[in-house]
Amino acid sequence: MNLDFEQGIIDLSFGSGGRVSAALIDQLFLKYFDNVWLNQKNDQACFKVPSGRMVMSTDSHVVSPLFFPGGDIGSLSVYGTINDVVMSGAKPLYLSASFILEEGFSLKDLKRIVESMANAAKNANVSIVTGDTKVVEKGHGDGVYITTTGVGIVSDGINISGDRAQPGDHIILSGYIGDHGMAVMSCREGLEFHSSLQSDSASLHDLVAQMVNAVSDIHCLRDPTRGGVATILNEFAEQSQVGISVDETKIPIHEAVQGACELLGIDPLYVANEGKLVAICRAEDSNKLIEAMRSHPRGHDAAIIGEVIDDARHFVRLKTAFGGTRILALLAGEQLPRIC
Amino acid sequence: MNLDFEQGIIDLSFGSGGRVSAALIDQLFLKYFDNVWLNQKNDQACFKVPSGRMVMSTDSHVVSPLFFPGGDIGSLSVYGTINDVVMSGAKPLYLSASFILEEGFSLKDLKRIVESMANAAKNANVSIVTGDTKVVEKGHGDGVYITTTGVGIVSDGINISGDRAQPGDHIILSGYIGDHGMAVMSCREGLEFHSSLQSDSASLHDLVAQMVNAVSDIHCLRDPTRGGVATILNEFAEQSQVGISVDETKIPIHEAVQGACELLGIDPLYVANEGKLVAICRAEDSNKLIEAMRSHPRGHDAAIIGEVIDDARHFVRLKTAFGGTRILALLAGEQLPRIC
Repeated sequence: MNLDFEQGIIDLSFGSGGRVSAALIDQLFLKYFDNVWLNQKNDQACFKVPSGRMVMSTDSHVVSPLFFPGGDIGSLSVYGTINDVVMSGAKPLYLSASFILEEGFSLKDLKRIVESMANAAKNANVSIVTGDTKVVEKGHGDGVYITTTGVGIVSDGINISGDRAQPGDHIILSGYIGDHGMAVMSCREGLEFHSSLQSDSASLHDLVAQMVNAVSDIHCLRDPTRGGVATILNEFAEQSQVGISVDETKIPIHEAVQGACELLGIDPLYVANEGKLVAICRAEDSNKLIEAMRSHPRGHDAAIIGEVIDDARHFVRLKTAFGGTRILALLAGEQLPRIC
Repeated sequence: MNLDFEQGIIDLSFGSGGRVSAALIDQLFLKYFDNVWLNQKNDQACFKVPSGRMVMSTDSHVVSPLFFPGGDIGSLSVYGTINDVVMSGAKPLYLSASFILEEGFSLKDLKRIVESMANAAKNANVSIVTGDTKVVEKGHGDGVYITTTGVGIVSDGINISGDRAQPGDHIILSGYIGDHGMAVMSCREGLEFHSSLQSDSASLHDLVAQMVNAVSDIHCLRDPTRGGVATILNEFAEQSQVGISVDETKIPIHEAVQGACELLGIDPLYVANEGKLVAICRAEDSNKLIEAMRSHPRGHDAAIIGEVIDDARHFVRLKTAFGGTRILALLAGEQLPRIC
């Protein structure tokens, strides 16, 4: 049977494990994700690994809308998980992808998303080696949810973890903040005020490879996705039992993002990024690290934004542009649901 | 902040990455899944692996209802993925777990599910080392969907794959079929006709370890979940380019399952199992394999149900109890949605 990728829609039979499931796998997933592991058609993928440290990370993606300026749920689900793997200093190798489809979802959109995932995986030099598809009745999902899990290998001598920040360490941000969150917000119904906003959704695998190559002893590395830069700084402070001080004037932000945030009363420091990272390293390593980052397009605007300090209360302090200081706490509520 | 696991419900702030997300992680996931990898609170887990072949498998779980006789979505999501890993002959090691929660879902039920996952992981001797939680608005989910991904290590000399069936090989089934599917159906609204039905949801890691120990060259192994025994026999036939002949009278089925299937007009050969497996091995190995299986509680009723034959059309033939033969094709539609 040939699936109709122009007019067809998902019905419950796509989740049956039967003839229609098999057609979806053959005509969509195997075609676009094409690799030896997936092509074996077993319920698991088998691959060789060298002995050493392996890293594993998972993320479910429920972003709404599915397509937004600068990306879509497909590429986001690949880059999001790869970046989580990469933030350990690992080289990402393999991904799994699991789909929860809503009855009535168009095969055309699903194909577009799967193509986008395939391209994203190719860009990041990883293979999508195993997967699953479930279908839920109309009204019990929202088009498509995608959960990806990634594994990668960490080289000897690299030991990056959120609990390694030390007083005196420098804090480096790789570029402009808030682009992803405000791009998604901008295209939600009724909020199309800034079509110039673009998500920064991208894989950071080669930027990190370059960084680790330049400075092997990076202490902490994390991508400020959901919850933004303020949230991960709080996580670092808590995990490492330190304080953090950052300088607002050093944090790069596009004018359009700043404007959109002001309009909506949102603090850009809490807005999700999908192609940025925050690194913490010894002060004496920071220039070398910045230099390595700036030589890569995704780290071109890297800047030292602050430092790790002693603080028994583990506060994150922001020196504001007006010369004051305010505490950046963890968010109490939710300002941007379904952002990733 | 202390979460109220008696009266509390999920709201969008549980997916914010902020204070409430952190409380959920600390008070629920870290508490029950407790292990060194998760406790590091990084966005990825890092663990040592020996060099060799690694196996990876993923499954999304959307079963409805969430709690059913003999199991729940929590234990099912752990066993389901472990079993997919194990069907390669691997020893399962680590799991990731990703939750898509619907706004309004009760924290009490979530706690019950997480406890069940923790117990299931303990039973199977694996650790849930990394995870993610997303929240979608009311009406865009169905309580909770759980995606788990598992990794494991395959010993040298084991090479189990769906494309290795050879004419003359014996086909072995580990026990009674249809229990899971009919137990879930039985407790769906309006269908509570057989409270005696119980899901067979269980981990097969130690049964398989025992099998591989007895017969190292098992050709094929798969758990007949969604789509049932008939579906995986068709998958084997297609992958291995062979025909398959099975004998209906050899397939064990509980009377209650048979009765429920007849009442609903469902063929038990297509009904999901969650604690059974089908193995294919050389005829001369089958008695040894059966013996190893029968010495384990989950393989107590193991039986040779048929054999692999030459057939250019790759048909699966069933010799019926009445002496006839019918073809078991792949399902065309969907008879049991949301079964796993």
